[in-house]
Amino acid sequence: MPTTKVLALSGSLRTKSSNTGLLRYAQANAPEGMHIEIADLSNIPFYNADITEPPEAVKTLLAQFAAADAFLFAGPEYNYSISPALKNAIDWASRAPDNALLGGKAAAVMGSGGGMGTSRAQYHLRQVFVFTDIHPINKPEVFANAFAGQFDADGNLTDERIQDGVKQLLAALATWSLQLRK
Amino acid sequence: MPTTKVLALSGSLRTKSSNTGLLRYAQANAPEGMHIEIADLSNIPFYNADITEPPEAVKTLLAQFAAADAFLFAGPEYNYSISPALKNAIDWASRAPDNALLGGKAAAVMGSGGGMGTSRAQYHLRQVFVFTDIHPINKPEVFANAFAGQFDADGNLTDERIQDGVKQLLAALATWSLQLRK
Amino acid sequence: MPTTKVLALSGSLRTKSSNTGLLRYAQANAPEGMHIEIADLSNIPFYNADITEPPEAVKTLLAQFAAADAFLFAGPEYNYSISPALKNAIDWASRAPDNALLGGKAAAVMGSGGGMGTSRAQYHLRQVFVFTDIHPINKPEVFANAFAGQFDADGNLTDERIQDGVKQLLAALATWSLQLRK
Amino acid sequence: MPTTKVLALSGSLRTKSSNTGLLRYAQANAPEGMHIEIADLSNIPFYNADITEPPEAVKTLLAQFAAADAFLFAGPEYNYSISPALKNAIDWASRAPDNALLGGKAAAVMGSGGGMGTSRAQYHLRQVFVFTDIHPINKPEVFANAFAGQFDADGNLTDERIQDGVKQLLAALATWSLQLRK
Repeated sequence: MPTTKVLALSGSLRTKSSNTGLLRYAQANAPEGMHIEIADLSNIPFYNADITEPPEAVKTLLAQFAAADAFLFAGPEYNYSISPALKNAIDWASRAPDNALLGGKAAAVMGSGGGMGTSRAQYHLRQVFVFTDIHPINKPEVFANAFAGQFDADGNLTDERIQDGVKQLLAALATWSLQLRK
Repeated sequence: MPTTKVLALSGSLRTKSSNTGLLRYAQANAPEGMHIEIADLSNIPFYNADITEPPEAVKTLLAQFAAADAFLFAGPEYNYSISPALKNAIDWASRAPDNALLGGKAAAVMGSGGGMGTSRAQYHLRQVFVFTDIHPINKPEVFANAFAGQFDADGNLTDERIQDGVKQLLAALATWSLQLRK
Repeated sequence: MPTTKVLALSGSLRTKSSNTGLLRYAQANAPEGMHIEIADLSNIPFYNADITEPPEAVKTLLAQFAAADAFLFAGPEYNYSISPALKNAIDWASRAPDNALLGGKAAAVMGSGGGMGTSRAQYHLRQVFVFTDIHPINKPEVFANAFAGQFDADGNLTDERIQDGVKQLLAALATWSLQLRK
Repeated sequence: MPTTKVLALSGSLRTKSSNTGLLRYAQANAPEGMHIEIADLSNIPFYNADITEPPEAVKTLLAQFAAADAFLFAGPEYNYSISPALKNAIDWASRAPDNALLGGKAAAVMGSGGGMGTSRAQYHLRQVFVFTDIHPINKPEVFANAFAGQFDADGNLTDERIQDGVKQLLAALATWSLQLRK
């Protein structure tokens, strides 16, 4: 059985982010054969076509995108859309020749936010996938609520129902990713 | 006739950005009674709730948001959605108590991009306005094409049809902004 | 104080629809000076440019659109978007010369559906407003849950929190509608 | 090589619809192994949960959905969103137990409309696919302009560039559909 290498990106830069917490839970509970690496976006500058020599943090990120078979996105919802830190990471990756870092790869989306669980941001992100030619799984959709006791004070996921959702998401991503690579 | 103070934000950080060019054209062709100030987003960091003391550039930007009666947005389309630099400026402004910097204010949207003229990014931006309680004009919509000779090499708007569109947009924004302040 | 004439449209054709129930509650609780009429969409055919002589039901509907100062939409969410019955009514109205039935008028949106309260359909509807030049209020957003005991078996709204939301929506619509007519 | 059975749906009910013309072109130019059947939506009523015994036209349509391996959608853009006739067909199909008619199947999207080529309607349709668990190809996107001489007076597609786009779309759909069935 081939290994699936997943690059995980959190849309929040907060130290105790519940979205990063979702990713840590996923990393610790990845199905057999899946390896999840969490990107560090804290030093990624805004994309700007004037930057001809990207800083080391960008080069590292792009190498991670290149090495990945699939992506796992967990982001907050800011003002009914995607957080800039997450969108910016994708924008950087999308500039590679022939869309080599993103095109045709599998993805899964989750998010921790308010009462709607970041759903509005997730549908905007799915539109981004059309241009970048990323293929997301449709189900399950994971909508976590950061204000409803589903995470501890350090942003660790403690809610069993959401934990189950994340595990089902990973199982679906593993199957989907292998199907796309056939 | 009261003065309308407009804060203009460009979604591109490039020096020769055609979106910033749209704003310069608007600034030089503002209708009587409208004053347009262009924000400098080059030193605005990503929003992060861990930042308890925002840098001076953010404070200046927030003061500009507070002083504005209306907003003028011109942004590129990155991967079928909003550029992070533009979204991030709004995200910072949205954190003021009682939504005091944005709520109830008027706005107009334009953009310079590829063949669809940033339309997909503009509709995402309009969804952001729902949560931030900004009231955009619906028409005209200004869709510029950065690759069709509408701008010179420095990003200055030279196309007459788009110039007319910008002037009509400003006239509509002036009327709308006054109507909302009655 | 001028009267505000509101045309209310339900996106569900079911006899016991909770969305029609939202409209009945609104009608019975309209603020002073607002008169709400509920459209009957049960005999409106699909819009088709080949139909040169629309049936009576369409003519009645278009006359109601013409007479209205503002619109109140309550629709279910079907497959994460707008119900065809509601969209179709707007499509018919949008064909009038010079957009005379819709352009510049005020609107408010609510909906009764599943756990997300039709939010995804509501944002699609708001994009429809851009082309039709309808100006919706941003807040409050009313998200009712048809499966959580908020309605009785006949589709009547019985939940106090949602009732309050509807009343706040109507108050905001009354103010907004008058502002747009100044 | 297995056969791919494709159900094609046009969002326009007009006799000389350019969207139906796109489907006729596709049907006549299907790649080897792909069979395209065009649905007749002219007698499909609005979905209504009160209808316990759907008319024959609906039963025929649902049988076509059930038999299909993949879907081909061609629709106009009405007021920046999906045409009700197209959305309604999907809504009927989505009511089958266990989402048996739609879930996991492949799809491709095209459209003929104004200057933006129905792009805004296409992105709304893609959101519908999330809930219905349909997997669309991302590329190519086919955006035809009904007012630019790309079709003859009967709605037949005559523009070579769009013809090429349709053929590429079908080739991509054939590959994608087989991949999803492995």
